[in-house]
Amino acid sequence: MTVTALAGGVGGAKLVHGLDGLVRDLTVVVNTADDAEVYGLSISPDLDTVMYTLAGLANPVTGWGVAGDTRVTLDAMAGLGERTWFTLGDRDLATHVVRTGRLRAGTPLSRVTADLTAALGIRARLLPMTDDRVATMVDTPAGRLDFQEYFVGRRHQDPVVGLVLDGIETAAPAPGVLAAFADADVVVLAPSNPFVSIGPILAVPGVRDALAGTSARRVGVSPIVGGQALKGPAAQMLADLGHEVSALGVARLYVGLLDVLCIDEEDRALAPAIRDLGLDVVVTGTVMGGPDDRRRLAREVLDAAVGG
Amino acid sequence: MTVTALAGGVGGAKLVHGLDGLVRDLTVVVNTADDAEVYGLSISPDLDTVMYTLAGLANPVTGWGVAGDTRVTLDAMAGLGERTWFTLGDRDLATHVVRTGRLRAGTPLSRVTADLTAALGIRARLLPMTDDRVATMVDTPAGRLDFQEYFVGRRHQDPVVGLVLDGIETAAPAPGVLAAFADADVVVLAPSNPFVSIGPILAVPGVRDALAGTSARRVGVSPIVGGQALKGPAAQMLADLGHEVSALGVARLYVGLLDVLCIDEEDRALAPAIRDLGLDVVVTGTVMGGPDDRRRLAREVLDAAVGG
Repeated sequence: MTVTALAGGVGGAKLVHGLDGLVRDLTVVVNTADDAEVYGLSISPDLDTVMYTLAGLANPVTGWGVAGDTRVTLDAMAGLGERTWFTLGDRDLATHVVRTGRLRAGTPLSRVTADLTAALGIRARLLPMTDDRVATMVDTPAGRLDFQEYFVGRRHQDPVVGLVLDGIETAAPAPGVLAAFADADVVVLAPSNPFVSIGPILAVPGVRDALAGTSARRVGVSPIVGGQALKGPAAQMLADLGHEVSALGVARLYVGLLDVLCIDEEDRALAPAIRDLGLDVVVTGTVMGGPDDRRRLAREVLDAAVGG
Repeated sequence: MTVTALAGGVGGAKLVHGLDGLVRDLTVVVNTADDAEVYGLSISPDLDTVMYTLAGLANPVTGWGVAGDTRVTLDAMAGLGERTWFTLGDRDLATHVVRTGRLRAGTPLSRVTADLTAALGIRARLLPMTDDRVATMVDTPAGRLDFQEYFVGRRHQDPVVGLVLDGIETAAPAPGVLAAFADADVVVLAPSNPFVSIGPILAVPGVRDALAGTSARRVGVSPIVGGQALKGPAAQMLADLGHEVSALGVARLYVGLLDVLCIDEEDRALAPAIRDLGLDVVVTGTVMGGPDDRRRLAREVLDAAVGG
C-alpha cells in the first residue's frame, strides 16, 4: 500500500510513527511554515519532530527535541549574552548546523532532508511541503508576530486575530509532493493543527487541488478531542477564528478534502453531524501515548481507508 | 602605559595574556585572515584563541578551544553524515553560533568581538585587524588551499610555494586599529607567525605605515627558537619561502618596523647580526608555559621598551 501523510509537529509525528511501522511505502509531507531562523540557524521544527520521532530519538516528554539531550552550547550562548529564548539541545543543534550549512551552500531543503533522514536510517520519505521560504505570521492584538515568537516566545497565549502565510503565493511544492498525492492509495491527514500545520501544506499552490483530485482514499484524524487540543493552540485558534471548537468544527474545514474523519470516542455524539457534511466517520481512541497506541491508531486509519 | 599588541593564535595569545596582567590599557589587534566558514559557521580562530586565553577558558593542552569542552554536537554531526574535519567543542560552538548569527544580521566583527569579550569579562580591547573579509590562501605543490584546509585539514604538511591574502587590497582597518598605533606608548609584536599571523595584519592598507610611523617603542618576540617554531608552520614557511630559519631571519622581516627584538637565550649568538640590522636585542627565555612565564616575558618586553 502506498500512503502519503500530511503532518505538522508532535501529534502528527506520533501517527506518522505508527504508520511507519505498518506501511512500506510511506511519504510524509511536512509543514515548513513554522520554519524560522533562530540564532542565525535555519530551524525546521516540524521536519525535525517527525524525523526524530521516526528515528526513535524524540524526547518522549516534550515530543520535540532529542531524548536525553544536553544544553552545553545553549548555556554557553547565554553566558555570551545571547537571549536564549529558543531551546536547542546539543544533539539537536547538530541538525540545525548541518542543515544551515547545506542550505547556505545552495542545497534545497528537500535534498538536505533526504540526506538527514538517510543518515538516521529512516525508511519513510520525508518531504518538506516546499523548498521555498513560507512563514506563518500570527496577527494578534499585540501586533503581527513571527510564528515562533508567538508559539515559543509567548507560549501561544495571544488571541489570534488572523494568520498570514508570507511567501505562499510564490512557493512551489517540493519535488515529489504533487506526485505523492497522485500515486497514493491512501492520504492521511494527521491530527495536526488545521491552521498552522495542515493549512500551510494545503495552501502551497497546487496541493489543495492535488488532494481534492486524488483517487486515493483520504482519512483524517481530528486533533480536537472533547473540545480541546491535545497539544498546542488548535482549540484556541478555532475559537478565535470563529469556528466551533470540536471535531465537527474540524470536519467543516476539511469538506471536499477528506473521505473519512476519525474522531475520539469522547466525541461520538458528533458523528451524525459530521456524516451530514458528507464525510464517513470512524469513532475510536485517538489519543496516542507510546508506540503501541500509535500503531493501533495507524492501523485503524488504514482500515478506515480500505474499508470505505 | 598604553600598549598595543599584534597577535595571531596560541603563541601570541600567551604573551598577550602576560601583558593583560600588567597593563591597564591594552589593545590587541588580531589576525583574521585565518577566518573561515566551516559547517556554515563563521570561525575566527585567532580572535577566539586570544579571547579564551584572556578569559582563562583556553584548553591548556591544545592552546585553542575551551578547556574541558565536550563534543556532543560534533559527534552528532558526524552521525548525520557531516565530514567533521574541523573540531568544535560544545562550549566553543556557542561562540561561533553567536558570532555567525550577529554577523549575518549585519553587525560588524569588531562590534561582535567587543560584545563577546565584554560578556566574558575581558578587560583588554580586542580588535580584529579588519571588519572585511580577508582570506589567506596557501599555494602548495598540491594547488591553492584555503588556510584552514592547509593548516587543519592537511596539518600544514604541504610545502608552501607562496601566500595570497585574498581581499586584502580592499580591506579597511577595523575601527580603532590605526589609532591603536598612534596612541600607544609601546607596540608589541607577539611571537606569532610572521607570514600568516603578523603578516596579514601588517598588510591591511594603512597598518604597516601606522607601525612604521608610530612614536611608540616597538618590541617584538621571535617565534623562532633554536631554528624551530614552538608551534605551527613558521619555521617551515621561512625555509620554503627562502628565508633563514632563525631569529635573524625573523629580524630581517621586521627591519623598519621594530626597535627591539626579544630572542631566546638559545639564540644568543645571533644578537650581533640582529643588532647590525639596526634593532636592539634582548636575550631572555622566550618559551612560555603557564601564567608565570607569560607574565615574566611580558614584563621583560615592557622593560625592553621602556629601557630603550
